[in-house]
Amino acid sequence: MWGIIATWRMALEGVTRVSTQLERGGDAASAVVDAVADVEDFPFYKSVGFGGLPSENCEVELDAAFMDGGSLAFGAVGNLVDIANPVKVAHALSRERFNSLLVGKGAREWAVEQGFAQKKMLTERAIGHYKKRCRDTIDQGLSPYDGHDTVGMVSLDRQGGMSVATSTSGLFMKRRGRVGDSPIIGSGFYCDNEIGGATATGVGEDLMKGCTSYEIVQRMGRGMTPQQAADSVVLELEDKLMKRFGRCGDLSVVCMDKDGHFGVGTNIKTFSFVVATSQLMPTVYLAERVNEHTIYQRADEIWLADYEQRIREPIDGVLYYD
Amino acid sequence: MWGIIATWRMALEGVTRVSTQLERGGDAASAVVDAVADVEDFPFYKSVGFGGLPSENCEVELDAAFMDGGSLAFGAVGNLVDIANPVKVAHALSRERFNSLLVGKGAREWAVEQGFAQKKMLTERAIGHYKKRCRDTIDQGLSPYDGHDTVGMVSLDRQGGMSVATSTSGLFMKRRGRVGDSPIIGSGFYCDNEIGGATATGVGEDLMKGCTSYEIVQRMGRGMTPQQAADSVVLELEDKLMKRFGRCGDLSVVCMDKDGHFGVGTNIKTFSFVVATSQLMPTVYLAERVNEHTIYQRADEIWLADYEQRIREPIDGVLYYD
Repeated sequence: MWGIIATWRMALEGVTRVSTQLERGGDAASAVVDAVADVEDFPFYKSVGFGGLPSENCEVELDAAFMDGGSLAFGAVGNLVDIANPVKVAHALSRERFNSLLVGKGAREWAVEQGFAQKKMLTERAIGHYKKRCRDTIDQGLSPYDGHDTVGMVSLDRQGGMSVATSTSGLFMKRRGRVGDSPIIGSGFYCDNEIGGATATGVGEDLMKGCTSYEIVQRMGRGMTPQQAADSVVLELEDKLMKRFGRCGDLSVVCMDKDGHFGVGTNIKTFSFVVATSQLMPTVYLAERVNEHTIYQRADEIWLADYEQRIREPIDGVLYYD
Repeated sequence: MWGIIATWRMALEGVTRVSTQLERGGDAASAVVDAVADVEDFPFYKSVGFGGLPSENCEVELDAAFMDGGSLAFGAVGNLVDIANPVKVAHALSRERFNSLLVGKGAREWAVEQGFAQKKMLTERAIGHYKKRCRDTIDQGLSPYDGHDTVGMVSLDRQGGMSVATSTSGLFMKRRGRVGDSPIIGSGFYCDNEIGGATATGVGEDLMKGCTSYEIVQRMGRGMTPQQAADSVVLELEDKLMKRFGRCGDLSVVCMDKDGHFGVGTNIKTFSFVVATSQLMPTVYLAERVNEHTIYQRADEIWLADYEQRIREPIDGVLYYD
């Protein structure tokens, strides 16, 4: 048995590619790192890696993390500028005894020192998005914050190994130096071979208030199915934040247990996610909440074709080729 | 009923001062922020704020956090340079809807923009420590990492409000950009009015692997006493890390529940902590682990006097006056 689950449709190509590795006995750590790196490399996924949307000062600051479910070792980077694959830096940091979480200038220095590829991560298309957003919000006195689609993946390999990885450019129009949940252990990701793993996407500031990924793993450990754990954590966190904090942003999660069973929870209209296992070809699902439960179904051909077109749409009438 | 519990002897003066505020009905948020700021201001506490030990490149990069147990709102800063009171910046960030966790250059920009006092935080005495450490370790090919005493405080006020705050200069000789558990929600701190709060100190990289503070609060929520929760979380995390990761650093925690009962857990020889409640004058305790349980007793006059002398000792024969 092997399996991999990932947030958002953007994970499909990476998940498909590493499925063949997992089928042949490849390890979960390489699977999540390679598949997340594929998402980072693709210019039309505007919330992760190359082509990711910039912060309010029009710089692309990237966050990423990796955790090994066996040793519980993790590595994470925040606000990393112009390094091609933040998830690979996070993976390398997970092998360090100290300094596992590095941010900003120090993260970049370490990555360069270790020989990770440098790359200008801000694209013309992302600048197009930025300019449009400034005009539509700040220039009119509105809140500019929007968009926060982190790619997160949990994988189980045939040897029983499990890993989780995340990568994001963070909240669109975020302040310089803002770190969301994606590189924060417990909130954006958590994994324990003996139980399972989970990862989250949405408004990081709210996901962190509930230590969302850790809580899902703990609930699986106490006997909930992955679906019960994912669904109940999202529902209860939303209820609690509405009652205590008065507001709650988008919250979506996926998880997988040590037997390859998966779960999903969301409070938004359409949360897409991707699953592949030894019994299931790579498949895109669409989840939504209905009557206090998250339900999901396979994305149909029309939705998938619309998606392909939407991510390449012109911005302000300009067609960008990457 | 009111109460406040804090990590390490260094918290004593701050805890003593805010005890009178709490006695008069002052709120828990002001108590933890004011008391932590006192620790930040005192030059002879070498792991927090002014006089804090520098990173490997001899810069003082400070981490701090604040969480309100009512709204679950939190604010945190990482790698903040030359701002007098990081905990006050964290407290202010907890009132923001987005960008609650800010690091590095962006954290400093925001703090300056908001008018927080700037201050050169590196002292001559800290440089003395740094030079000695380089000579004793790096120059001899040894690991330089040492020292990581975070001040963390949990408070309950007469109105039933609870808050937690932390502040640290982080692991001595850390890499530039390294963030430990202190500004990480769930790991370094967590607080929920309806249950209680917890905060941790020790090797952040290991404390984070167990989402230590969140886990303590959850166990109190499921009916453990604060002492059972603190003690069992430290013991189990150490066991798990030894088994799975092969190593485990220093782990110490304190917690308080919504009724003002407190707990402590540690795996080191002498972990000092400070408690004051409506029934207890500010008191320094010394904790240690004996037969798989954390036990503690009041610090005696000799220990307290030795401490006063030790923090002011000459470094390499030089007596620094701050």
